[in-house]
Amino acid sequence: MAKSAWIFGDVPGNPEGTTYPDRRALSAAGVHAPPEGGIWGRQAQGVVSIVLNGGYEDDEDHGSEIVYTGHGGQARGGTHQITDQELALNNLALARNVADGLLVRVIRGPRGDPAYSPKVGFRYDGLFHVGRYWHAVGKSGFRVYRYELTKVATSPVAAGIEIHGHLAGPPPKGSAATRRVATTTQRVVRNTAVTQWVKEEHRYACQICGIVLATPAGPYAEGAHVRPLGGEHRGADEPGNVLCLCPNHHTLFDLGAISVGDDLTVVDAMSGAPIGPLLAARRHEVDPAHLRYHREHIAKAN
Amino acid sequence: MAKSAWIFGDVPGNPEGTTYPDRRALSAAGVHAPPEGGIWGRQAQGVVSIVLNGGYEDDEDHGSEIVYTGHGGQARGGTHQITDQELALNNLALARNVADGLLVRVIRGPRGDPAYSPKVGFRYDGLFHVGRYWHAVGKSGFRVYRYELTKVATSPVAAGIEIHGHLAGPPPKGSAATRRVATTTQRVVRNTAVTQWVKEEHRYACQICGIVLATPAGPYAEGAHVRPLGGEHRGADEPGNVLCLCPNHHTLFDLGAISVGDDLTVVDAMSGAPIGPLLAARRHEVDPAHLRYHREHIAKAN
Repeated sequence: MAKSAWIFGDVPGNPEGTTYPDRRALSAAGVHAPPEGGIWGRQAQGVVSIVLNGGYEDDEDHGSEIVYTGHGGQARGGTHQITDQELALNNLALARNVADGLLVRVIRGPRGDPAYSPKVGFRYDGLFHVGRYWHAVGKSGFRVYRYELTKVATSPVAAGIEIHGHLAGPPPKGSAATRRVATTTQRVVRNTAVTQWVKEEHRYACQICGIVLATPAGPYAEGAHVRPLGGEHRGADEPGNVLCLCPNHHTLFDLGAISVGDDLTVVDAMSGAPIGPLLAARRHEVDPAHLRYHREHIAKAN
Repeated sequence: MAKSAWIFGDVPGNPEGTTYPDRRALSAAGVHAPPEGGIWGRQAQGVVSIVLNGGYEDDEDHGSEIVYTGHGGQARGGTHQITDQELALNNLALARNVADGLLVRVIRGPRGDPAYSPKVGFRYDGLFHVGRYWHAVGKSGFRVYRYELTKVATSPVAAGIEIHGHLAGPPPKGSAATRRVATTTQRVVRNTAVTQWVKEEHRYACQICGIVLATPAGPYAEGAHVRPLGGEHRGADEPGNVLCLCPNHHTLFDLGAISVGDDLTVVDAMSGAPIGPLLAARRHEVDPAHLRYHREHIAKAN
């Protein structure tokens, strides 16, 4: 196998819809280099492409939305989970896409969901945004990592994003980089009547660190949904499911670096160390059931 | 005038496209209560509605996108600026919409841009997102505040968001609040090949405070464009126009609470007090011209 370029986005000469007779051809085109694995990733840099080909019983393919199951936990050659998956190797790499807003190429093979997969060979089906990831108990009773993939609209600027790592390549030139850029969404903060109410109850003070970000427009804070809205989480937009947080703690909470115990102690989910009490406002009560959901699905699993 | 309800979003019974013979009717309907002023706002809570009626020489109406000029700096009854506008009163209230992602109702009157305005009377033209605000020297040579308004797609859930202030009303009930909610975007963070490169050069350390947010997916940071992309700012997506920041400092920088001097000292733009040196990476040089643009247009004017 020739060494393929490490490119996020469309690979030049391989637009969405291109088909390949087999994995070898897919690899030779540089669209998905590994000859067998379903994930082409680098742990510190992210995942450039995945192949959906019926290998995981917990995958859900809805066409433009996919719930993708992470790697591992199976016997060699099997499709059933026989042990917990870990947030390591390619699972960790795909979590990087979430943190940085990096798009992933999706290729479908003949053993995938018949509604969306080619009958023979492999097909490049375009770029997907990896909106969030979480862990859950899969069909076989073991922990699997799950990633919410949403297809992005194809646009001329989405082609060929080459990311230069620390140690590789010169800084991107303005013009060259601009040509290759696909602007992707790294993070979206939403406001609702409920988050607005919660922020005002706390007078925009972060419930974790107490900071009030002062801006010329007045104080700034964000409403964080504890159990995420929509998708398979089905969290509610209600005061008991919202925390008032500064952007840093909102990010850490959403990415599972921080959790909150039943006793309302904020905990570093990676070390298990307590950080301090969740700060309260008189009329705002957080629902412990939602905090538990966050601990069991969003916060780092141990 | 009857006291009108303070509602963000569509006012029940007044869908987009509703027309009113005069300001009195507009006021009576609760769509825009003030009998004369162009902005219906409360300083700490935001602006619920504005009337575009040819009163400001620096307004630009492009239909679904509007660059709206703030209040003040004119002689009574005039349309020309005779002094600098200040970020106070209704200008400050409209900046609140930016910080919280609150939508504003736009009403057009007969003296607005003929391409988009009714010939007689007033028309409610729907909800607009106030994406950002800045200051610039207007046509008459004085400082004006400018707000970028973008029309949001009409949706059934966009109707009648009633925001309860600290001192007014009970907490929203789950069901009732859900009925009234329009989810609006408070903040979007984008990733490009250039921002990705800058973040990696700094190994995800904030150039203002040095923090590296540690998450289960690895380090987290955001690329902040110094001179904003697009719109009338026309900033470039190039390394010299990007800072690697933590979400808190990214927010403070975008909202003009912080600026950076020619000597690369980070300054509290509200007090003028120095905060410390902008942290550097070996291959990443920030362009002083972009920092100057940010000081002159985005950072708090003094």
